[in-house]
Amino acid sequence: MKRYVLDDFKLDNESLKLGETIFHNANGYIGVRGCFEEGYKDGFDTVRGTYINGFYNFVPMPQAEKLCGLIEEKQTIVNVTDTQGIELYVCGERFSLFAGKVLSKKRWLDMEKGITCREITWQSPKGKTVEILIKRMCSFTCLPLFLIEYSVRAVDFSGDIQIKSTHTGEVMNYFNPNDPRVAGEACKHIFTESKEIIEDISVISSLTAKSALRAVTAVSHKLSKETSHTAEQSKDGVIFNFHTQIEQEETVVCHKYSVICDSVRYKDTKKEALRLMEETRQRKTGELYKEQEEYLSVFWQNCGVDILGEEELNEAIQYNMYQLVQSAGKEPHSNVAAKGLSGEGYEGHFFWDTEMYLQPFYILNAREIAGNLIRYRYTILDDAKENAKILGHKKGAAYPWRTIMGKECSGYFPSGSAQYHINGDIAYSIAAYYLATKDKALLEECGCEMLIETARLWMDIGNYQNGMFHINTVTGPDEYTCLVNNNYYTNVLAAYNLKWAYKSFELLKEEKREADVEKKTGITKEELSSFIKAAAAMYLPYDETLGINPQDDSFLQKSIWEVSTIREEEKPLLLHYHPMHLYRYQICKQADTVLAHFILEDEQDMETIRNSFAYYEKITTHDSSLSTCIFSIVAAKLGMLDKAYEYLGESAKLDLFNTHKNTADGIHTANMGGTYMAVVYGFGGLRIKVDGLHLEPRLPKAWQGLRFSFLYEDAQIEVNVTPEKCVITLLKGKQKELHVYGKKVLLKKSLTILKEDMK
Amino acid sequence: MKRYVLDDFKLDNESLKLGETIFHNANGYIGVRGCFEEGYKDGFDTVRGTYINGFYNFVPMPQAEKLCGLIEEKQTIVNVTDTQGIELYVCGERFSLFAGKVLSKKRWLDMEKGITCREITWQSPKGKTVEILIKRMCSFTCLPLFLIEYSVRAVDFSGDIQIKSTHTGEVMNYFNPNDPRVAGEACKHIFTESKEIIEDISVISSLTAKSALRAVTAVSHKLSKETSHTAEQSKDGVIFNFHTQIEQEETVVCHKYSVICDSVRYKDTKKEALRLMEETRQRKTGELYKEQEEYLSVFWQNCGVDILGEEELNEAIQYNMYQLVQSAGKEPHSNVAAKGLSGEGYEGHFFWDTEMYLQPFYILNAREIAGNLIRYRYTILDDAKENAKILGHKKGAAYPWRTIMGKECSGYFPSGSAQYHINGDIAYSIAAYYLATKDKALLEECGCEMLIETARLWMDIGNYQNGMFHINTVTGPDEYTCLVNNNYYTNVLAAYNLKWAYKSFELLKEEKREADVEKKTGITKEELSSFIKAAAAMYLPYDETLGINPQDDSFLQKSIWEVSTIREEEKPLLLHYHPMHLYRYQICKQADTVLAHFILEDEQDMETIRNSFAYYEKITTHDSSLSTCIFSIVAAKLGMLDKAYEYLGESAKLDLFNTHKNTADGIHTANMGGTYMAVVYGFGGLRIKVDGLHLEPRLPKAWQGLRFSFLYEDAQIEVNVTPEKCVITLLKGKQKELHVYGKKVLLKKSLTILKEDMK
Repeated sequence: MKRYVLDDFKLDNESLKLGETIFHNANGYIGVRGCFEEGYKDGFDTVRGTYINGFYNFVPMPQAEKLCGLIEEKQTIVNVTDTQGIELYVCGERFSLFAGKVLSKKRWLDMEKGITCREITWQSPKGKTVEILIKRMCSFTCLPLFLIEYSVRAVDFSGDIQIKSTHTGEVMNYFNPNDPRVAGEACKHIFTESKEIIEDISVISSLTAKSALRAVTAVSHKLSKETSHTAEQSKDGVIFNFHTQIEQEETVVCHKYSVICDSVRYKDTKKEALRLMEETRQRKTGELYKEQEEYLSVFWQNCGVDILGEEELNEAIQYNMYQLVQSAGKEPHSNVAAKGLSGEGYEGHFFWDTEMYLQPFYILNAREIAGNLIRYRYTILDDAKENAKILGHKKGAAYPWRTIMGKECSGYFPSGSAQYHINGDIAYSIAAYYLATKDKALLEECGCEMLIETARLWMDIGNYQNGMFHINTVTGPDEYTCLVNNNYYTNVLAAYNLKWAYKSFELLKEEKREADVEKKTGITKEELSSFIKAAAAMYLPYDETLGINPQDDSFLQKSIWEVSTIREEEKPLLLHYHPMHLYRYQICKQADTVLAHFILEDEQDMETIRNSFAYYEKITTHDSSLSTCIFSIVAAKLGMLDKAYEYLGESAKLDLFNTHKNTADGIHTANMGGTYMAVVYGFGGLRIKVDGLHLEPRLPKAWQGLRFSFLYEDAQIEVNVTPEKCVITLLKGKQKELHVYGKKVLLKKSLTILKEDMK
Repeated sequence: MKRYVLDDFKLDNESLKLGETIFHNANGYIGVRGCFEEGYKDGFDTVRGTYINGFYNFVPMPQAEKLCGLIEEKQTIVNVTDTQGIELYVCGERFSLFAGKVLSKKRWLDMEKGITCREITWQSPKGKTVEILIKRMCSFTCLPLFLIEYSVRAVDFSGDIQIKSTHTGEVMNYFNPNDPRVAGEACKHIFTESKEIIEDISVISSLTAKSALRAVTAVSHKLSKETSHTAEQSKDGVIFNFHTQIEQEETVVCHKYSVICDSVRYKDTKKEALRLMEETRQRKTGELYKEQEEYLSVFWQNCGVDILGEEELNEAIQYNMYQLVQSAGKEPHSNVAAKGLSGEGYEGHFFWDTEMYLQPFYILNAREIAGNLIRYRYTILDDAKENAKILGHKKGAAYPWRTIMGKECSGYFPSGSAQYHINGDIAYSIAAYYLATKDKALLEECGCEMLIETARLWMDIGNYQNGMFHINTVTGPDEYTCLVNNNYYTNVLAAYNLKWAYKSFELLKEEKREADVEKKTGITKEELSSFIKAAAAMYLPYDETLGINPQDDSFLQKSIWEVSTIREEEKPLLLHYHPMHLYRYQICKQADTVLAHFILEDEQDMETIRNSFAYYEKITTHDSSLSTCIFSIVAAKLGMLDKAYEYLGESAKLDLFNTHKNTADGIHTANMGGTYMAVVYGFGGLRIKVDGLHLEPRLPKAWQGLRFSFLYEDAQIEVNVTPEKCVITLLKGKQKELHVYGKKVLLKKSLTILKEDMK
């Protein structure tokens, strides 16, 4: 049973804010933080939020010094109408966990049912006891629906109860002025356009301040028992009041339906919200719950990962995978924000995280999501072309480092727009999708065009010197070293991007499907050849003495800052050192060259990768949550299973155990994807390359077994590895030729590799 | 006669704004833009300003993205109380150049008298003709005094005239939202604290909004003829009205005295302003004018430069030298702003301009100013130490790239704080002052301590690699290439700084005067040795193939962007290209390595300097006003006199001919100093080194002669060069050993070198 349970959860402010993230409900379209319906104690801090994926406001971002092309406006995720509010009055006494006596309390997330629950036994100050059970769900099958089921049981009394339910339009984004990593504006981004009560449905229409996007929420209720009720407009929205008599041992249930529609997806937003509300209310809630469970049952079937012998780790990994399905946009209008839909950290922006940390999961397990994430990038291709122009380029597309609707939102370009590798990352994910699916339709629809436009940018940014192709003044993934020349990660990926621009066009040509792309891009044979030539001539820095790939041209000439010498109070370094100071040292925020050694492992021999790993490990702080998972994968590849296991643990438990102390701001989706990768790519040894599928499963000492399944071409394959043997099973699809532990084998139905052959 | 005259000056808005700069009055303490007392036409734009050197407000400078150590508050120069206002009514008709008939008009600057004048013959709409002569002066001998002498002569009528004189406290800084190079805030920086009329003196006390500095202005008048007058408070300040009868051919004169005192210099500001007003009014204006003339007579005597055969150039150079005496702070509380006291461009900040472009002039001609400019840097040494900490350094001082009161004001650190060379520039100027004066007192007072603290910073920023001392992640003078490793200019200057820290301490030790410095800095023998060791091991990039010093480690691996290919509409590049794009090319905003080849010419052989010059010339846009003068000097050194002459012209005429189209924002003081340098260092071939004074005068074809004089040690020396001979005369002081045209000679009284010996 996939469940995460907090028995007797804590009521201090820290824990509650953390709980808002941990127990948030989301479905990729909307997300609602796990706040208490009735609120906390006075003075407690809360990020009480409801978010829509891809729904944003424009916010001014003035530059301290004005320079040509610097970005001065950003987008930010918007906290929309609050429909969480429910107050309960027991014979006139207001229910609160901070008053009376809490006899028992428990919260949990049910990842099979797709709901969160809070269960409380509460004795009022005057001694009346109630049992309260609150279930919450964001529906995967009706994306605009957020449902609260609020049940009250009178334990030791009969009397009147009142349920006061609110629908609040006047909301603001959260502001914490002390943390540079969280959105910086104390801002009201959305304003109420109208509020109405139509029969027993309240409807609030809101408009964002600068982007002029509309969000309409409709709220209505169903009570299990006849009640007297009123609905009236308040200053902030609408208040519903339900009064009823409850008998001892009776249970009264209130279903609160919230339908949230936005103008990004829905043309006649209000009409659609009302239509969906009518439609949903006519259905039994049981049906809605069932659909939710069915949706998740398919999800879990496709992405089954089970670790035997380590319950906590297993739970953390499953929690992470669940967040991945909660966070991902389900259509091309949106993507996966750095914090999913669980908070406002990183302002709801989409980063390279999607392509390098999340797509591996979706490609293997949820192809529809993977395809739409690629399509999303296509919807913003024109913006990326415009961005290239802003950056001074004469051709090609420069994807924004962080964005919601396509325009760049980096305020500090040296660790923003300078990360041109995002072009390569997107290209990599398109290639990865193709290699795993062999789906030429997506290449034809958009993939090939994006590969060509990103490739063009490399041709414009780079230059030949002594016959080699150089890429200067860029920033690699490691933000502790900015604006460098020939970043290894960037260059190796740029070459891959260039190759795939050529290759994808050839793939379409083979089937005479290239005409559209040719027309849209005006690509010529000469330009395609220039891609291949530059890729072949790509300069990749290599240091003979150390036998490693230096992170960039000048990395090794800087002073080494060994991680072992960093004091606790200096962590993370970015909060304690001026960026220029960090740039002056061999010190890495995260995997950079090591990441390149994972994603394009065949570019270097094993010895170089081993040397690089050892070299960079000493100077990597993992101040980014995208780091340890990659070190885990490469450690596993190098046979350092203990190390790989340790890194995986750090990765897997980041949010559930709040190890970075900032999960209250939202989950770290990329790290969650990275955790999955560490299991399947690291211990599973899975790779999908041009020559096919590779598997090299290996277990750390602590595990009794690892089982995972995934999609490959037309097939679903399961890997089941124990210390004694590795069993590979074709769950569905046609027989496949695989590379298992380096050997070519034919998977007809099932294959068993015995201990002695598991190198 | 040193005069700059504009006959029949133009009345379009562009010309008038330019005139405000060109004809501004200043004395190093206060500056008043050359606006019309009576104002312009409605809708005309004006930068109507009065400024105090070193007087500032704090202004928030939020960073688009918050990172550790980034500066979020800056200082800005403040437009203080306006005392320029005078309206004239002729028999009830208001005088304006935009009404009636202007029969003649003329403006001039008299650089010997130290006044600006405007002379107009005006016929009112009703036909009454007056001759108006307005003289303005900022006194060099009573720094707080600004004087307007307003004379009116009735040409063809008798009748009443009214003079309405205003004293306005409610003023704002200028704001032009379209130009990133001018201060960016539409800001009211100063507020009226009190206004009073004490007898016939009006006193306005103002307080800056955030820095809480006080400026008190006192205004009073003297009229040549008895008048009836009133003085009354208005919303904005005080209005004086003077009424009198004028007879045909009679002249009425109004002297308007403004005394401006600030709390930076004066403790009891108001009392002091009143005291100075009383004192000044008791004196005859003739005396004040005389003192002014005498002050300037000494100035011109010391810094005589005369070019024979090119009047326009000569005028431009003398204009520039005059601005240098107008702009320089006369005590250690202030410095020389990038635009002097002529405008708000660059927000009144002090840059490296002072040390590298202005000190050469002051050291040779106005030693008191030079000494105070060094003392100013000492007053902000503690801020520089604090700034070093902000930048992550464990020791030493990092002088702010731009500042007024000592704290860094760079909003964009890659072309701000990263220009660590400012430390070296300050060190260079201390050494230069010493070499020219042999004044150990200043070394003891402050110079040696500053040399040690700046040297310490290099030790902290740099690191040894393969036995060489490297300095990574800095920006040289050329802002089109930022955050590089081993910038040649920076490294060669850092070595010089390190050497001079050692040397200056030794110089004091020789006379047992080192105790104070030792105590204040805690310097040890070991640390001093470490300076010398690092200086000797300093890595200076050199390219064998090209035989040049590359600007930095990676400069030559970038694509060349030839200046000849830049289209007019792309200039200046910084307004048309994203900085990152510029960083990716071999393209220079200004002299960088070439500047190093001038200031420390003995570090490279002539061949390398020649190669470098040729190489960088092709890729230097001179988008900075600090560039052409340096190219002129080095061209002269290399014997390319035509080229040197051309570059000098570009430099010399920049402001007077508004060649950069932005002189309306203020003069370019550094370029003005650079012009002087191009004449005296370039064509004069003057150098002062450890081995003494060097002279190598050479004339471009266009000149019939060049004469200049300067101070050296106890002496004043005059150089007079014509195509036929070079005469060097000891105007005062003891005999000197000199190097003339490379030969050692003894200057007793006068030396003549004939044509054939002038190589």
